[in-house]
Amino acid sequence: MNNYLSHFTLSKNSGSYSDSDSDDDVSPRERDQESSKGFKDFCVKNIRYATIGRREIEIAEQEMPALISLRKRASQDKPLKGAHIVGCTHLTAQAAVLIETLVMLGAKVRWCACNIFSTQNEVAAALAENGVPVYAWKGEGEQDFWWCIEKCVAEDGWKPNLILDDGGDATHFMLKYHPAVFKKIGGIVEESVTGVHRLYQLSKTGKLCVPAMNVNDSVTKQKFDNLYSCRESILDGLKRTTDVMFGGKSVSVCGYGEVGKGCAAALKGMGAIVTVTEIDPICALQACMDGFRVQTIEDIADTADVFITCTGNRNVITRKHMDKMKNGAVVANMGHSNTEIEVSSLKTKDLVWEKVRSQVDHIIWQDGKRIVLLAEGRLLNYSCSSVPSFVLSVTACTQALALIEMFNAPEGRYKQDVYLLPKKMDEYVASLHLPQFNAHLTELSDDQAKYLGLQKSGPFKPAYYRY
Amino acid sequence: MNNYLSHFTLSKNSGSYSDSDSDDDVSPRERDQESSKGFKDFCVKNIRYATIGRREIEIAEQEMPALISLRKRASQDKPLKGAHIVGCTHLTAQAAVLIETLVMLGAKVRWCACNIFSTQNEVAAALAENGVPVYAWKGEGEQDFWWCIEKCVAEDGWKPNLILDDGGDATHFMLKYHPAVFKKIGGIVEESVTGVHRLYQLSKTGKLCVPAMNVNDSVTKQKFDNLYSCRESILDGLKRTTDVMFGGKSVSVCGYGEVGKGCAAALKGMGAIVTVTEIDPICALQACMDGFRVQTIEDIADTADVFITCTGNRNVITRKHMDKMKNGAVVANMGHSNTEIEVSSLKTKDLVWEKVRSQVDHIIWQDGKRIVLLAEGRLLNYSCSSVPSFVLSVTACTQALALIEMFNAPEGRYKQDVYLLPKKMDEYVASLHLPQFNAHLTELSDDQAKYLGLQKSGPFKPAYYRY
Amino acid sequence: MNNYLSHFTLSKNSGSYSDSDSDDDVSPRERDQESSKGFKDFCVKNIRYATIGRREIEIAEQEMPALISLRKRASQDKPLKGAHIVGCTHLTAQAAVLIETLVMLGAKVRWCACNIFSTQNEVAAALAENGVPVYAWKGEGEQDFWWCIEKCVAEDGWKPNLILDDGGDATHFMLKYHPAVFKKIGGIVEESVTGVHRLYQLSKTGKLCVPAMNVNDSVTKQKFDNLYSCRESILDGLKRTTDVMFGGKSVSVCGYGEVGKGCAAALKGMGAIVTVTEIDPICALQACMDGFRVQTIEDIADTADVFITCTGNRNVITRKHMDKMKNGAVVANMGHSNTEIEVSSLKTKDLVWEKVRSQVDHIIWQDGKRIVLLAEGRLLNYSCSSVPSFVLSVTACTQALALIEMFNAPEGRYKQDVYLLPKKMDEYVASLHLPQFNAHLTELSDDQAKYLGLQKSGPFKPAYYRY
Amino acid sequence: MNNYLSHFTLSKNSGSYSDSDSDDDVSPRERDQESSKGFKDFCVKNIRYATIGRREIEIAEQEMPALISLRKRASQDKPLKGAHIVGCTHLTAQAAVLIETLVMLGAKVRWCACNIFSTQNEVAAALAENGVPVYAWKGEGEQDFWWCIEKCVAEDGWKPNLILDDGGDATHFMLKYHPAVFKKIGGIVEESVTGVHRLYQLSKTGKLCVPAMNVNDSVTKQKFDNLYSCRESILDGLKRTTDVMFGGKSVSVCGYGEVGKGCAAALKGMGAIVTVTEIDPICALQACMDGFRVQTIEDIADTADVFITCTGNRNVITRKHMDKMKNGAVVANMGHSNTEIEVSSLKTKDLVWEKVRSQVDHIIWQDGKRIVLLAEGRLLNYSCSSVPSFVLSVTACTQALALIEMFNAPEGRYKQDVYLLPKKMDEYVASLHLPQFNAHLTELSDDQAKYLGLQKSGPFKPAYYRY
Repeated sequence: MNNYLSHFTLSKNSGSYSDSDSDDDVSPRERDQESSKGFKDFCVKNIRYATIGRREIEIAEQEMPALISLRKRASQDKPLKGAHIVGCTHLTAQAAVLIETLVMLGAKVRWCACNIFSTQNEVAAALAENGVPVYAWKGEGEQDFWWCIEKCVAEDGWKPNLILDDGGDATHFMLKYHPAVFKKIGGIVEESVTGVHRLYQLSKTGKLCVPAMNVNDSVTKQKFDNLYSCRESILDGLKRTTDVMFGGKSVSVCGYGEVGKGCAAALKGMGAIVTVTEIDPICALQACMDGFRVQTIEDIADTADVFITCTGNRNVITRKHMDKMKNGAVVANMGHSNTEIEVSSLKTKDLVWEKVRSQVDHIIWQDGKRIVLLAEGRLLNYSCSSVPSFVLSVTACTQALALIEMFNAPEGRYKQDVYLLPKKMDEYVASLHLPQFNAHLTELSDDQAKYLGLQKSGPFKPAYYRY
Repeated sequence: MNNYLSHFTLSKNSGSYSDSDSDDDVSPRERDQESSKGFKDFCVKNIRYATIGRREIEIAEQEMPALISLRKRASQDKPLKGAHIVGCTHLTAQAAVLIETLVMLGAKVRWCACNIFSTQNEVAAALAENGVPVYAWKGEGEQDFWWCIEKCVAEDGWKPNLILDDGGDATHFMLKYHPAVFKKIGGIVEESVTGVHRLYQLSKTGKLCVPAMNVNDSVTKQKFDNLYSCRESILDGLKRTTDVMFGGKSVSVCGYGEVGKGCAAALKGMGAIVTVTEIDPICALQACMDGFRVQTIEDIADTADVFITCTGNRNVITRKHMDKMKNGAVVANMGHSNTEIEVSSLKTKDLVWEKVRSQVDHIIWQDGKRIVLLAEGRLLNYSCSSVPSFVLSVTACTQALALIEMFNAPEGRYKQDVYLLPKKMDEYVASLHLPQFNAHLTELSDDQAKYLGLQKSGPFKPAYYRY
Repeated sequence: MNNYLSHFTLSKNSGSYSDSDSDDDVSPRERDQESSKGFKDFCVKNIRYATIGRREIEIAEQEMPALISLRKRASQDKPLKGAHIVGCTHLTAQAAVLIETLVMLGAKVRWCACNIFSTQNEVAAALAENGVPVYAWKGEGEQDFWWCIEKCVAEDGWKPNLILDDGGDATHFMLKYHPAVFKKIGGIVEESVTGVHRLYQLSKTGKLCVPAMNVNDSVTKQKFDNLYSCRESILDGLKRTTDVMFGGKSVSVCGYGEVGKGCAAALKGMGAIVTVTEIDPICALQACMDGFRVQTIEDIADTADVFITCTGNRNVITRKHMDKMKNGAVVANMGHSNTEIEVSSLKTKDLVWEKVRSQVDHIIWQDGKRIVLLAEGRLLNYSCSSVPSFVLSVTACTQALALIEMFNAPEGRYKQDVYLLPKKMDEYVASLHLPQFNAHLTELSDDQAKYLGLQKSGPFKPAYYRY
Repeated sequence: MNNYLSHFTLSKNSGSYSDSDSDDDVSPRERDQESSKGFKDFCVKNIRYATIGRREIEIAEQEMPALISLRKRASQDKPLKGAHIVGCTHLTAQAAVLIETLVMLGAKVRWCACNIFSTQNEVAAALAENGVPVYAWKGEGEQDFWWCIEKCVAEDGWKPNLILDDGGDATHFMLKYHPAVFKKIGGIVEESVTGVHRLYQLSKTGKLCVPAMNVNDSVTKQKFDNLYSCRESILDGLKRTTDVMFGGKSVSVCGYGEVGKGCAAALKGMGAIVTVTEIDPICALQACMDGFRVQTIEDIADTADVFITCTGNRNVITRKHMDKMKNGAVVANMGHSNTEIEVSSLKTKDLVWEKVRSQVDHIIWQDGKRIVLLAEGRLLNYSCSSVPSFVLSVTACTQALALIEMFNAPEGRYKQDVYLLPKKMDEYVASLHLPQFNAHLTELSDDQAKYLGLQKSGPFKPAYYRY
């Protein structure tokens, strides 16, 4: 099971007031806690952190108006009345806003963390204080991790009918250890690339006996998490770590998918001279039309100042490439895995590693040449930048709507397969975020709707539309 | 049938040396012509124009290296040996490069025009001189139009097995009047929005008894014809007609699909202040993230300097809007139809039309206010700009590959339905255009291909990938 | 004197309704014409064109609101009452708006053309009909040219006290042939680079006995005529002549002054990959920071698709460079002279010139390589694009204010030297153009003005401010 | 004297290894220290930090290749042999690279800090260890500050002939307390806006009896410190403090000088919708042409998401404006003073301040509205971002060249006045930075230089050129 844990070793939001709470040596599992109202169905670091956590949640609420407006619009319907949700996600203030929204919409929930490091203990405490059965703390051990999932999946009397998963651990745990419970599930909502991949594998092998929804590939999620979010975080990540001036810098962006497009646009906008590498001729042609020279990494290994991997592939930048790079070259990864840069090849006796500051290593060749490696090849945007709350809002909103859809869908709409979010839902998520931009949507006239053959309320595009 | 003709009343490339050939009053159908080699199976304006047409074709060849390289790569295989193609397209120099490529690849063809105005007579003559059975001239009457199609569809001894259509006229003519011939067709390749729409309707009603390929929705076609081509032609079209300075101008772009995205980006790049109108919340959110204010047309009818419709919808700008516009406001259409601007509403007694220059009318209100209407509401990019040959090259290349695919596909790959171009073909079209940009594609290593679960030669993306 | 005429062989606005007036063979000098009111002090092609010309002037007025607002603001003061102005400029509709503005402000004027081709005959007729003594027609001979100037400079009883010149011909003519008149001049306003250069030479050699104002180097003129105007006209000029698609094109911009900055920004904005050549390290460093690679023309002669000269220098692109260029390379000039491209070196026996369309020549090497030369190396923006009326408005407004300033300046403010327009005037020209953009200027509070040590009405910047 | 200290309360580079050196209570002035070589003419926090400081200097050297190349080019000439320089600047690693360059070029120096907080103690130690008389430590008191200056200005036997000043404190101290020494000074080089302002005031009142050079207004300094540096730091500063997503944000940039231009361009590039406020019509017109709406702060106080002041003025954003702002609005200052935002007006009883994180305060209105104030209204780029070493390199290089120029200028070139850096020097600074961009400068041919009337080695532009 070890490898399940390795997906995230860095939390999205690792700030925590109680990091150095070194006096607190007892494991949460061994401590006896209860909320001010006598509620005891939880296991968090320290229920006393609840006040601080509540304030964090309140601040997050300010930044997630779409979810708040969902509460308002849907609270009378209670569209999740009867829903029993097992949640397994990063446990942050933003997640708490989602969880409390689900509860307000009528759901019962049990919640654990999808990562042993990413829980904000104060937030977990605030949820517990508010009566949410939450089992999570920062720095759980592996055994704790699975124990927490067990507590959420298979507690006595708890009959879950929905799973909200991020990475697939809750799903696979239930499938393996509680197959009877699993069969009663009405739907799985999965957010991560990894989790979605695992669902498709289950589906292929015929093991997926319940419907699942892939919210990772919804339009809003893709465009925001990838294109727009990376467009911003590449600058931030490089600046915080290296203080580099972008103007006139020669940058190699490896891969011209959504992430690469975002990185290249941002860097070009700041005056960098960007070169793109691609394997796919269509994306390569897009890069050309967008004003980027398309070259191989070999072509420019010895001239570029900065190298950014955005491919989802492995060993895109190898030792051989780095041997050719010039002194001071910066190497960073914005792709999906931590294998894009062949970091292992740098751990040889002839090279010296020098930690210059947090997340910045100088790798020193024998002739004195230094390569600047950021975040040890892990994701730069998660390690050295911040995720805008707007992005988290889009994701959380999508998750909530997917749960509502799966729970309320008429019998037979979803079978034992992996589905994309219905376009209408995708459009609804977008519409909930428009007020923040004071955007005024145009409404089709009856005449126009008829002419286009559309419903006035959407969906507005065919399934294959590319946006 | 009248309405079939109305799709294009302006040719893509209307330049023609023989426009004023007023001494030439006899209909081509009544003239007896033959090529220098005694070839007589054609009907063109005047075979003597062949030399001029040949030079035009040679110049076009210079700008279509992808097609030339297709000739080289595929000429030994003769992948179209045995193909008998009915072609019905705009008959321009660029089309001639395509036609002669098809012939070099082994095909037999018969060719007519999809539009009564768009034929370049010199080019048609050059094709005839080269032994291509071509039936087309500029200014055909309606009866001539269908006679020419008849000559290409149903000549004695001619057993066509492929159709290359642009608008669907050849397809529907054959289906209606020569159903027996139609049933022998192995595949239809259709390029236009309109033609594709008609194919899907046939398919829905069960009348499509042969496979068809929708090349209009291929990635390269969409992105080039819409996003990139419009990005360039909006500036050109406005400049040629109005000499407007873009800097500081307030522009309303109606619709934020590919066309609207291209227009908005170009105008913003030149210093215009662009506002977007949208009905689709996802596209509206994209506009926000790209830095455009999203408003309704009502919001800005009285303040914008320029209005551009890019919706594909009708009556997007109505008389009511134009009544509110300020003096000197420019109104133009970049969308798919000539109905986006409610031009008919301007033809009332209280308004005076004044033709200021070619394609530019001033509509004068009774208080002296003038609205500048471009191309009488027809497509600005076709009427007042030029289509870059690069775009035509992409389209022609896609058509050639689609024909090759349909002709060589193993039994059963394509059934009686409308198909999108296989992604691999799309990628191949892109790859043929990369040398023009001196682009160097990266090749996957065996290890990487395995890691990604891809063939090294592609296709590289899932079907739903949005680019 | 021949060389004086060669500065402009292409008019800014060469449209004229009477071009083909071949029935009109008699020289205007030999014809006896009078206006409908019996006015005879003029010499134009045909006074009957006046109605058409008046309409042209009215259309131009719509596009020059700053001048119209100057009429309104200053008409009561009659700030030019007593001013007797010799005007020698291009005689276009826009110039007519200026001339009639000067008259409304109280001036008496006599006007001739600074170029033998640039007069719009209809406009000249309309001015004459309106009682303005105008001596100019399109296609004057050299002798006519100087005769017209003579009529404006030294008519009996005419005591000019101001000159508005464009190129310096009126100034030098008066200085040489009517030195006594010249000494009475209170001020010269000169607009062109050439004229300003000649004034500084007079000043250096001690021959400038009257004050002169260089309006060519005013901020608004420089930034609009150079940076902003070229930013727009480079795209327009290339598109109209070559229909080239900018996306992905490799373009070499020679020179990174205002013109080069404008061209490079526009091309980059449309997806071209721009390389800059520079001799000045400061401008080169700006190019770097703006994201352009700085190379020599030799570095990229064999790879760029398009070459644009913007240096003001000569022989920037030589035969040697063009020998190295690839097939289809486009060469154009946006700089100040027609000598930037060594066109003469292309007129050798081994090269064939082929005129492809107006302003476009193919130069064909013996191996078949074609270089596309635009406008025979003359200014692309004047030859193949249009000058936005907004730019002409800024220039005309600056000229009017400069005349007012020189005429009303207290004794001793201007001595026998060449002056730059006072910054306050420059700011005033700008402020007159802001309403077109619906721009709201902020006003300094008393407290803020004191803090900054500024008058609330400006000027707002030190003389050396770079904008 | 108090106000002299207030110019900088935040150092450019405040990182220091010994911040928490709480065991070290004795004042440096009372400690007896000597270098490993017995050198004692210095006063630093702790000479033992020298090794760490040396490493910092070495890292800085890597980022300042222009200065290193100046060492190489000029070290044989020893152009500063005989120069005795009093230096008073921020004492950072970058300053140390400059100081050691001056020494290598032949100068003798004595150095103190221009700010009581900005000294990096380790760097000072390294300089002392290397034999440089340095008097500076972080956290000096006011008396210490002047004592250090005294030690550098007026030590027995020290006859300074040059001053390198940053803020004017050394200059004014010497003028006031050691006028006899001051009279022997051959030149002052002043870098800061404040110091330059004070020099011009001395000049106006006739008290400046030595020549001074204003390097603040050199082209490279202005463009880099203002336009380019701010273009980058605005994004960085906002991101680090607020994690805001720029896409779609409505931002008001107050002032469109170099700083405003840089901020507006960067924010627009990232998808923000930027509105500009201006008092100067020329800058306002530039903003229009660059695609920004020009409004007053009143116009948009209630709609913008972010407000950035870049004016150099005071009370640009007042309490009245902030009363109108919407919940969550962010207010930050990028201008020259800390008075642009009327922070004092926020210190009233009805408002609650809540420190959210370092440099971020929430000001809470009684109705719960929160305004996010960054860096308490001080400079955002200095407080919340980093200064790229490239900018520091340009500044240091300019200072070194200015010192060389003043020291070597022939008698009479500089009189008792304030001079701008000769353009040729400015160009030389730029040329020293080009190799970092691998830029290839074009050289004028003899023929071209003659045509332009220029020396082949420059200067290339007239004094009034605006770049």
